[in-house]
Amino acid sequence: MPEPDRRILPPGSVIGILGGGQLGRMLSLAASKLGFKTHIYCPDPDSPAFHVTDRRSLAAYDDAAALATFAKTVDIVTYEFENVPAETAAALVAHVPVEPKPSILETTQDRYAEKSFIRRQGLAVAEFDAVSSAAEVEAAAVRIGYPCVLKTRRFGYDGKGQAVVDHPSGIAGAWLEIGGKPAIAEAFVRFSREISVIVARGRDGTMRTFDIAENRHERHILRTSTVPAAIGAATAEAAREAGLAVAQAFDYVGVLAVEMFVVGDGAAETLLVNEIAPRVHNSGHWTEDACQISQFELHVRAIAGWPLPVPHRHCDVEMTNLLGAEVLDYASFAAKPDVVLHLYGKSEPRPGRKMGHINRLIPGGSS
Amino acid sequence: MPEPDRRILPPGSVIGILGGGQLGRMLSLAASKLGFKTHIYCPDPDSPAFHVTDRRSLAAYDDAAALATFAKTVDIVTYEFENVPAETAAALVAHVPVEPKPSILETTQDRYAEKSFIRRQGLAVAEFDAVSSAAEVEAAAVRIGYPCVLKTRRFGYDGKGQAVVDHPSGIAGAWLEIGGKPAIAEAFVRFSREISVIVARGRDGTMRTFDIAENRHERHILRTSTVPAAIGAATAEAAREAGLAVAQAFDYVGVLAVEMFVVGDGAAETLLVNEIAPRVHNSGHWTEDACQISQFELHVRAIAGWPLPVPHRHCDVEMTNLLGAEVLDYASFAAKPDVVLHLYGKSEPRPGRKMGHINRLIPGGSS
Repeated sequence: MPEPDRRILPPGSVIGILGGGQLGRMLSLAASKLGFKTHIYCPDPDSPAFHVTDRRSLAAYDDAAALATFAKTVDIVTYEFENVPAETAAALVAHVPVEPKPSILETTQDRYAEKSFIRRQGLAVAEFDAVSSAAEVEAAAVRIGYPCVLKTRRFGYDGKGQAVVDHPSGIAGAWLEIGGKPAIAEAFVRFSREISVIVARGRDGTMRTFDIAENRHERHILRTSTVPAAIGAATAEAAREAGLAVAQAFDYVGVLAVEMFVVGDGAAETLLVNEIAPRVHNSGHWTEDACQISQFELHVRAIAGWPLPVPHRHCDVEMTNLLGAEVLDYASFAAKPDVVLHLYGKSEPRPGRKMGHINRLIPGGSS
Repeated sequence: MPEPDRRILPPGSVIGILGGGQLGRMLSLAASKLGFKTHIYCPDPDSPAFHVTDRRSLAAYDDAAALATFAKTVDIVTYEFENVPAETAAALVAHVPVEPKPSILETTQDRYAEKSFIRRQGLAVAEFDAVSSAAEVEAAAVRIGYPCVLKTRRFGYDGKGQAVVDHPSGIAGAWLEIGGKPAIAEAFVRFSREISVIVARGRDGTMRTFDIAENRHERHILRTSTVPAAIGAATAEAAREAGLAVAQAFDYVGVLAVEMFVVGDGAAETLLVNEIAPRVHNSGHWTEDACQISQFELHVRAIAGWPLPVPHRHCDVEMTNLLGAEVLDYASFAAKPDVVLHLYGKSEPRPGRKMGHINRLIPGGSS
């Protein structure tokens, strides 16, 4: 009698999710669609993902007892954000499969390690150097040129922990602004566009990509993702290849996003890889309404060892984040027949907080 | 200052759902997408809908204390099935809005009342009579003709409580078979096709219909729904009109389904309305993957007083129910790129039990 394929997690299994924000919520909803149960682990009692499952751990990420209990009651662990403490992941991995592998977090949690990793894959990045003092910033800036950008090596997101240096006189202030923490100094990129690719990779190495999204940020927060991106076919193909190379090099299981800058226009377009998000990503939210399978479902399938169908996009689409009080206009978005509304169930619309998103569907395009 | 529109239930409100099966589960998932919380009330501890929310009442439908507590903790109540006891609905309606209105259930829970109601709307139905004894069956059959079908007035579903009478000699046996309960005797319809229409109606009277589905049953259980139905444009329009007439006559709020027989073919097609389901319906499961908005979301929006966009279908589609052990082949369904898989998270694949469904997407069509 053949052995059952232990790599396939059957429906009814419990998927543990570290993090209870909107990404955890949408992962949980996608897992439910496939008949999985989910268990949300999060230290924040106001986590929106808590509302969409009957299993929760309200506990700190360094609560060893809570982590041990969590590990015992789930069949696999995944996460919705990349800043899971390495110790948390290590505590879990001794007891339960964790995907993507925690070692990947060690790379992506440190901008210097991340950029170095990307460059080792033969992918172009903006010039960068590790810096740990204002003097080192000055030395790096001489090599890289002005303007350059200081970014803390750890815990930066949505533009936090970043400062632009236009001139040597600005170094001291910028160094203070980022808190005097270990950082990288990076060449300021004059990009024509920002794009991203969402890649899924299964346990057997199967890889899938979604069409390239073109992203517009406002104050470092993603505002819109438009698909297809207004880039040449060769650039789109190169962006896909970059995503596949990253996933392959990590021996990754699950969904990741690679954010890139497009420099130049038309035939002169080139790519610089900016950063990797080892998780489902805001720039992939359009997949839920414009494809037969979403990034969330592909992530769940990948970690569960399920087949990964090729995503098919049936229309063009523009995703717009609803930030802060914008969400209060929900009824007007809900009235538009070409708009699909997603609200995250967060109680307080604080300024800049991601409260939901809309996908505007544009018939005609497809891939 | 204008009064806020109290008819609109804001995101964050709690939607109470009576019934914890797959319809309640999919309603809950659709409500979550709009930022609502849900509370499932069901007497069955193994209810699949319990897994997708953090609020539940595990209690009998006649548990007055549990109903009172439930009513206090939700902002509106709806249901996933039509056999909610009238007393249950009445107990709730004194404390909290209930949509659709419980009085509608009184009509649809009784086949005689339902058929009479349909006929009063000027819609064609198969000949029928109320019968409460074998002698009355015989008298009815004389008028209606053989074969005819006995159907209990109450609590029939998936073919339960039905018996065909081919000849006067079969009456006694058929009467026993349906348990000797109050019933209707109905003309046996030699239909060419079975179809259904899903209608949504909002509190302001706005009505929307989805495209007509063609349904194939096996042993009285829905097997497939195919959209579009292979019927003439005039027949499709008449089917829509029938659905709209029913929703309007009930002053309905929410989603309902009207099942119909098509008799004859081509230019000779005529319609007989078979039954009304005052809820989301299995023959509308295709909407989730072939339209920008699903029957589940339209139901949630309707009862919450939200705008109801016109559904747009972006492809043709065939929905197939996964019954009993068929669900064990989930991995092979999951491998097909044109198939969207939905599993209900039920633990036991008993024969004939609805365990999930697949939507096979067929590019090209749209409406």
